[in-house]
Amino acid sequence: MTDTTETQGISREELRLAARNHGMPLEALRYDLTPAGLHYLLIHYDIPAVDPDPWRLSVEGHVRSPMELSLDDLRSRPTTTQAVTLECAGNGRTMIEPHVVSQPWVLEAVGNAEWTGTPLRGVLEEAGIDQGAVEVAFKGLDRGVEGEQEQSYERSLPFDDAMRSEVLLAFEMNGRPLLPQHGFPLRLVVPGWYGMASVKWVSRISVLTEPFAGYQNVHSYRLRSDPEEEGEPLNRIRPRSLLVPPGIPEFQSRSRIVDAGTHTVLGRAWSGFGPIERVEFSDDDGRTWWDADLGEPPANEYAWRGWTFEWHASSGEWVLCCRATDATGATQANEPAWNVGGYTNNAIQRVSTLVR
Amino acid sequence: MTDTTETQGISREELRLAARNHGMPLEALRYDLTPAGLHYLLIHYDIPAVDPDPWRLSVEGHVRSPMELSLDDLRSRPTTTQAVTLECAGNGRTMIEPHVVSQPWVLEAVGNAEWTGTPLRGVLEEAGIDQGAVEVAFKGLDRGVEGEQEQSYERSLPFDDAMRSEVLLAFEMNGRPLLPQHGFPLRLVVPGWYGMASVKWVSRISVLTEPFAGYQNVHSYRLRSDPEEEGEPLNRIRPRSLLVPPGIPEFQSRSRIVDAGTHTVLGRAWSGFGPIERVEFSDDDGRTWWDADLGEPPANEYAWRGWTFEWHASSGEWVLCCRATDATGATQANEPAWNVGGYTNNAIQRVSTLVR
Repeated sequence: MTDTTETQGISREELRLAARNHGMPLEALRYDLTPAGLHYLLIHYDIPAVDPDPWRLSVEGHVRSPMELSLDDLRSRPTTTQAVTLECAGNGRTMIEPHVVSQPWVLEAVGNAEWTGTPLRGVLEEAGIDQGAVEVAFKGLDRGVEGEQEQSYERSLPFDDAMRSEVLLAFEMNGRPLLPQHGFPLRLVVPGWYGMASVKWVSRISVLTEPFAGYQNVHSYRLRSDPEEEGEPLNRIRPRSLLVPPGIPEFQSRSRIVDAGTHTVLGRAWSGFGPIERVEFSDDDGRTWWDADLGEPPANEYAWRGWTFEWHASSGEWVLCCRATDATGATQANEPAWNVGGYTNNAIQRVSTLVR
Repeated sequence: MTDTTETQGISREELRLAARNHGMPLEALRYDLTPAGLHYLLIHYDIPAVDPDPWRLSVEGHVRSPMELSLDDLRSRPTTTQAVTLECAGNGRTMIEPHVVSQPWVLEAVGNAEWTGTPLRGVLEEAGIDQGAVEVAFKGLDRGVEGEQEQSYERSLPFDDAMRSEVLLAFEMNGRPLLPQHGFPLRLVVPGWYGMASVKWVSRISVLTEPFAGYQNVHSYRLRSDPEEEGEPLNRIRPRSLLVPPGIPEFQSRSRIVDAGTHTVLGRAWSGFGPIERVEFSDDDGRTWWDADLGEPPANEYAWRGWTFEWHASSGEWVLCCRATDATGATQANEPAWNVGGYTNNAIQRVSTLVR
C-alpha cells in the first residue's frame, strides 16, 4: 500500500460501522425495485426486537385526541403504495476531503423500494391539530449514546412537511411486512428527503409547538461549514445519478475491464427537489458530456428514473461518469464540497475502466 | 484519531470491498433463522443477472450421462430443507496482525438460514459416476479478475465430500426463492464448510479425474503460513461462538453501556467438525470462564446452537467474551494466529462494556 492509499483509508472505529451498515452493490441499480437485502441500511444503534402484539403507536403532544394505535388499527386505515428512493445524507462521505469521521459510505447508500402504509396526514387529522403546531417529532425504539447523550433515535419534520400527502406510516416494503432492519413493525417514509427523516421502529409521534431540540435535529444531520455555526437541518435529497459499472470487476480494486465495442450503460437518477430532466454521460472523467436516454418517468415522483447510454468503447483507459439535472436546474458538481458532517455530497461518480 | 487507530484501519481498496459485502449485525444472533438481508454476503465479482427460463445446470466431465437440468427439473427432484450456518473463511480477518489485505471482516461474516434444494448426490448418481472421479468442480456465473486471472468463480470439493448426503443444490432460502445476491436461481450449500465452498449462481458441475487447478482452490482459500508454501485448501469451519452485545451501543465506537444487575447474555455457537458441547462466558477478558447454558441441540447438525448466560453485572469496565468447544475437543484461542490469506481466525470475541 502506498501512503496515498493509507491517508484515504478509514479507522478501526469507522470499519466497525462499515461492518454493520449495508450499502447497495451498484450492479443492483439494474433492478427498478431494490430486492430485499440489497437496499442500503444505516442503523445508528441496534436493530430493536419488537413484539408486534403489545406494540402501540402513540400520537400525542399538541393534539385534541391523543391516540394509541395497534398495528391492526394502522392496517385497517386507508393505505397507499408508492416507490420511493431513499438515500443516506452521508452517501459519498469518504470522497470528501479533509476526511470526516462517521459511517464511511462510498456511493452505495441508496435503494428504491415500494412502501405500503397509511398516510401520516390522516392520523394527524384524526388526532386533531390545534393552531400553533410547528413540528412533528418521530421517536424510534432504537436506543444508544451519541455525542455523549443517551437517546432514542428521534427526528422531527416541520408541520407542513408532515402534512404532505405522500408521507407514509409504512408497514410493508416490496409487498411484505417490514424486515426487522427496515423498521418492523412501522416506519416513517418521507419521500424526497434524505433517509434520516424516515424514522424506523416508530413508537411515538409528538406534535410540537416549539422546534424539536433533539440531537438528530440540533447536532447531527445539519449542514454546517464550521463546527461553531448553527447551520440548517438537512431535508431534501440533492440530485444524483449512478451507473452500473460495466464489464467485469477486478476483485480487490473494483476497477472494471470491458471489451471494446458498443455497450449499453445503464443507471438511475433521482432528486428530492423535482423530477429528473436530464442525465449526461462522460467517459473522459467529466471533460466531455453526452446526453443519456431517459427512461419513462417513474410512476411516483420520488422514485428514481432509469437511463441508458450507448457507449462506444475503444481500447484504452477511461473514467466513466454520469450527471443528473432536475427540474429546478440543480445538477452535480465534479468535486465534493466539505462540510462538518460530510453530508449531501452529490459529486459525480467516477468509474475507472480499462477497455481491451 | 490516534496513531494506533490509524494503523488498525483499512485502505481505500478494502473500504470498497466493505461497502459491497454485508456482515450480519451481531444483535441478529437473536434470530435462530437469520432474516432476509441480514445474512452475510461475500461476492467476489458482481451479482450476475440471471434469467431463470433459459438457465440450465450442466452436469458434465467424468460422467456416463451428461445432463442439462432446468430449474423446474431440479424442483421436481426429491427435496430437503435444512438449517445451515455459513461463515466466511475470512471472518475475523481484521483482528489478525500483521494486517492482511482483502475483504476487511470484523466478526459479522456469518448467518444461519434454512436452505431447500435437492441433494447433489442424487444428481451425480443419475449422471453416473465411473471409477476414477476424484473431485467435483462447481462453476458460478459471476465473473471477474483476481490474482491477474480472468475467471468465473469456481471451486471444487473432493469427491467423497460432494457425495455427503447433506450437500444441497439449493433453490430456496428461508422458504422463498433465492435472492439475487444469494445465488438465484441455484447455489451449492456445503454444510459445515466455510462459505467459499457453497458456490452461488451455479451453472456447471464437472466431475474430475484430477484435482481441480482453479484459482479459488490453488491460490485463494488455502491455509499457508508462508506465501511460498503450497498449503492446504480450506474446508470445515472451526468452532466459534458469538454473543449479542448487551445493553446499548455508543454510535461510533460500538462500545456498550449496560445497567448494573442481572442480564441474560445470549449467543450462538457452531463448528464444522462436530456438535457444540460447551460454551463458556467471561466478563474479564478471558481470565475467568464460566459455563454457559446450552440451548437445545439444533435439528440439523450444521446449524448453530443457542446459549445463554445469566450475567451479574456490577459497575465498572468489563470485557465480555465467549468460547465454544466442539465434540472433537477443538476450541477457540484467545488471540488469532497469522496466516497468508487471513483465514480461519476463530479467536474469541471481545466486547468492551461499561456497567453503570
